[in-house]
Amino acid sequence: MFLAVVVGSYVASRSLPQLLELSLSFITAYCLNGSSMVINDIIDKEVDKINDPLRPIPSGRISVKAAIIYGGFLGLAGLFASCITGIGTLIVAIIFYAIANAYNVWLKPLGIIGNVAVSLAVVAPFLYGSVLMLGTISMKVLILGLLAFLANMGREVIKGMVDIEGDALRGVASIARIYGSRKAAVIGAGFILTAVILSPLPTFLGMLGWTYLLLVCFADIGFVYSAIKILLDPTHVKARKVKRELLAWMSIALIAFIIGA
Amino acid sequence: MFLAVVVGSYVASRSLPQLLELSLSFITAYCLNGSSMVINDIIDKEVDKINDPLRPIPSGRISVKAAIIYGGFLGLAGLFASCITGIGTLIVAIIFYAIANAYNVWLKPLGIIGNVAVSLAVVAPFLYGSVLMLGTISMKVLILGLLAFLANMGREVIKGMVDIEGDALRGVASIARIYGSRKAAVIGAGFILTAVILSPLPTFLGMLGWTYLLLVCFADIGFVYSAIKILLDPTHVKARKVKRELLAWMSIALIAFIIGA
Repeated sequence: MFLAVVVGSYVASRSLPQLLELSLSFITAYCLNGSSMVINDIIDKEVDKINDPLRPIPSGRISVKAAIIYGGFLGLAGLFASCITGIGTLIVAIIFYAIANAYNVWLKPLGIIGNVAVSLAVVAPFLYGSVLMLGTISMKVLILGLLAFLANMGREVIKGMVDIEGDALRGVASIARIYGSRKAAVIGAGFILTAVILSPLPTFLGMLGWTYLLLVCFADIGFVYSAIKILLDPTHVKARKVKRELLAWMSIALIAFIIGA
Repeated sequence: MFLAVVVGSYVASRSLPQLLELSLSFITAYCLNGSSMVINDIIDKEVDKINDPLRPIPSGRISVKAAIIYGGFLGLAGLFASCITGIGTLIVAIIFYAIANAYNVWLKPLGIIGNVAVSLAVVAPFLYGSVLMLGTISMKVLILGLLAFLANMGREVIKGMVDIEGDALRGVASIARIYGSRKAAVIGAGFILTAVILSPLPTFLGMLGWTYLLLVCFADIGFVYSAIKILLDPTHVKARKVKRELLAWMSIALIAFIIGA
């Protein structure tokens, strides 16, 4: 998450925040992420008693009360650190934190709505970096965010094909569970191919140069390859592979944005 | 791997290879990596029959003979693509490919020697990128490679704490299995802290500026935090977490090199 803040800052402004601002975003990223993980552990207490009894709460090492205090403290510390750099970063932090907790509490079982929440949470730190540097979300970072959102949506839908059994236990209505693996592959690949089609936008709009376009082409080749793979063989085994491959292509696309910026 | 070639090229020269050269390294990275994966599957045939019977070779979908032909073809194609860009890149490719296959065939059970082979294979694509651009390995990329090697060594040793049971089955003499988890934590943390101590070098040698130093400090904070964590509690559960955290800090350090370059 902190990494995405750094990338967002750099893509927006071709420079980095001052040491103080960078440290504050480090604290914000660490605390808000930590807080939503603690809240997740509190909510998953009953499921973890069966699936993961060694975790701090089900094993009794940490009481629910202590976890609530710790999670609340982390959340407040994260928001406090973000408000020092301004009202803009505070607003982005609050929105991200609200989405992350809404996901923990309500949205996780809702299939694609849950996927949207996770993907927004992935994009938020890029936007945070832009707001930190410019006070606003630059067009470059907005497109970076849109592409990251689409690619991540595709990855989440395909991930649902891998997690079918676990999701059945938890009652998550993922696309793969409700409509079957074949439809999930089509929808997942659809998100990814949409990202591929939109990926040359920054160059055509004159925001990023040919270096970006050249590099993103290689990410696109990877994305298309993985999309075809999962469409031809929409199975559990293939989805596990494709899920990993997609992370690699997403990293190449990110490097394209950084080097091209 | 292709990503590391791109990063190595950029850090060495602050520019990217031409489209043709970039495409050839894409093919080299893809084919050599693929080839060593196929060879690994051929060698692990007997183990996979028990642990992973659905893989192509143990399930009988692909015969050993076909796999040998396919693996050999990929290897030759990868080396051929690298020789087009010159004798330098061919040499790096051959060395990398030899290490990867030596690991598959002999070095995997040898504990720390296996870790060295894996870490060299992680570093090789950075060097490849530098040789591609400059015909030689730049000092910047050499230090990047050294730091990546040390951090990855630490991660591999700590990974051995997670894989203790699987390694017992395969007869891998990892540090964690031979000397116990506590010693593995000390050795793993030692590698990581050495990388941390050396990380300001590029700035002190005048090769990278303050941007790099600022960013790498955040990676260093993460590395020290993870090292302390595993030293205080050298258990299986903690090693699994630290192994993941280390990847995040390594990504921040890589971004520090790219943005600082």
